[in-house]
Amino acid sequence: MNKEDVFLNIINQTISDNSYLGNDCAYLKDLNLLISQDTLIEDVHFSISYFTPFEIAQKALLVNISDILAGGGKPKYITVSLSGKLNESFIKEFYSGLDEVCVEYGIKIIGGDLTGGDKIIVSITIIGFGLKQISSRSAAKSGDDVYIAGYHGSSAFGLELLKKGFRDNENEFIKTHKKPVLYGKISENVANTVNSPYVMMDTSDGLYDAMKRVCMESKVGFDISYDKILKKVDNKNLVLFGGEDFGLLICLDKKYANLAESLNLQKIGTVTNTNQIVIDGVVFNIDKSFNHFK
Amino acid sequence: MNKEDVFLNIINQTISDNSYLGNDCAYLKDLNLLISQDTLIEDVHFSISYFTPFEIAQKALLVNISDILAGGGKPKYITVSLSGKLNESFIKEFYSGLDEVCVEYGIKIIGGDLTGGDKIIVSITIIGFGLKQISSRSAAKSGDDVYIAGYHGSSAFGLELLKKGFRDNENEFIKTHKKPVLYGKISENVANTVNSPYVMMDTSDGLYDAMKRVCMESKVGFDISYDKILKKVDNKNLVLFGGEDFGLLICLDKKYANLAESLNLQKIGTVTNTNQIVIDGVVFNIDKSFNHFK
Repeated sequence: MNKEDVFLNIINQTISDNSYLGNDCAYLKDLNLLISQDTLIEDVHFSISYFTPFEIAQKALLVNISDILAGGGKPKYITVSLSGKLNESFIKEFYSGLDEVCVEYGIKIIGGDLTGGDKIIVSITIIGFGLKQISSRSAAKSGDDVYIAGYHGSSAFGLELLKKGFRDNENEFIKTHKKPVLYGKISENVANTVNSPYVMMDTSDGLYDAMKRVCMESKVGFDISYDKILKKVDNKNLVLFGGEDFGLLICLDKKYANLAESLNLQKIGTVTNTNQIVIDGVVFNIDKSFNHFK
Repeated sequence: MNKEDVFLNIINQTISDNSYLGNDCAYLKDLNLLISQDTLIEDVHFSISYFTPFEIAQKALLVNISDILAGGGKPKYITVSLSGKLNESFIKEFYSGLDEVCVEYGIKIIGGDLTGGDKIIVSITIIGFGLKQISSRSAAKSGDDVYIAGYHGSSAFGLELLKKGFRDNENEFIKTHKKPVLYGKISENVANTVNSPYVMMDTSDGLYDAMKRVCMESKVGFDISYDKILKKVDNKNLVLFGGEDFGLLICLDKKYANLAESLNLQKIGTVTNTNQIVIDGVVFNIDKSFNHFK
């Protein structure tokens, strides 16, 4: 188990009611609401040497929108907690960035707070409505097809470029790292069409990590062809383990093959009844997030 | 205007839909939900030299609960974003503190995230249901009675003691600063009894600040007797301007005098049709949070 899983176990053992912890989204069934909170911290998640306030706001919001979309929902409201060495121009730039994305997705800013502090911290809570069928990490079953949307490895490669000092905002990888591309039309279509439980999660912590989580929670395995994974970088480490691409990992019953085709989903493999992730015949140990390609 | 008001103005001018910004709570009428997000940051809101992880968690949660209660709601769900130099014992202590308060108020932890980082940052989003009549800062009208619940100045005095190096956890003021006393029975009773718009807000930023905000948003004034304000410290500066007491400021139509008496609310004055806050005949300028007693 990695550190975060250890911590989540402790939390689950400590609190009295632990029905929803550990998912990207909470689902309140009686209200049909999906809720998620994600925090971005300066020098942990981004550096102001290459992120403007406008860009920080947009990324912080898109990360949260991605959780609702992948959960099978439609984002609707956000609260925004912003800390840092705030001044008028920072606030103006930050909220301009936020507003642009809010308008695009029909999201309303309903509250939040402002605090002084050394580092910039953005914590956004997002609330969305569930569409016809919300997704679940535990819904994969042997025989399902495994699909992805989006190119993997691009964001991590963009981050490498930024860390090396590249500052070209027109560079495709840097752009992807700064402003993730989301697949809202695909997730909305899947959530409104599929009639039975299905897996859909974003690949924010990397494609392999998403596969691992689905395997653990669905008690299944995956048989994957590396060649089928959409990518623009020639680096297995970045493609499988690089984070922040915000693509989608979707597992669907074979009867939805036509739907998947109509949405241009990329089939990368099948769900198996083992407890192994096999990529091009190489067996990965699900319990450890060890990088076998390294 | 103070800095926060300037920033809020900028936000309201920047974003396309600004219906709810600047309140402690957002109210989603169609869902009858009250939502609030508050963030506590190490060395801004607390110091680990006198706050344990258990205490940090409880204060962060109570601050949020207070917003929902004063809004006329019943707290129900939270998401918790926790950052810092996290280790297993920190997580365990923190979530134990959180759980104790959650059990007391019937609140469920539905999500959140964990992040590494230098400073401890706790951002909690709380969701509650509206009771019969939610409160509003703009509902005060000339002739209303002005009530408070709670003692003012105690928390700020406790903080002074802590900053001077006192570490007695049985000291009443230190206790109040670390674990605010809330007035949930009073707020619930008011919200379930009153049939017309009324003011109820917590005094988290100080009693004078709460009065000022009500006057500005209701376009009224206050005539207050300082002697009527409940207090355990003999320091006008702390009583009027000290924050974090989490008492209640309530303005009710005279017809609710019996209700107020039954709840032991303390009448401290009346709402006037001026735009001045007058305390014992001393006129305060509402637009500036200038301390005339200093």
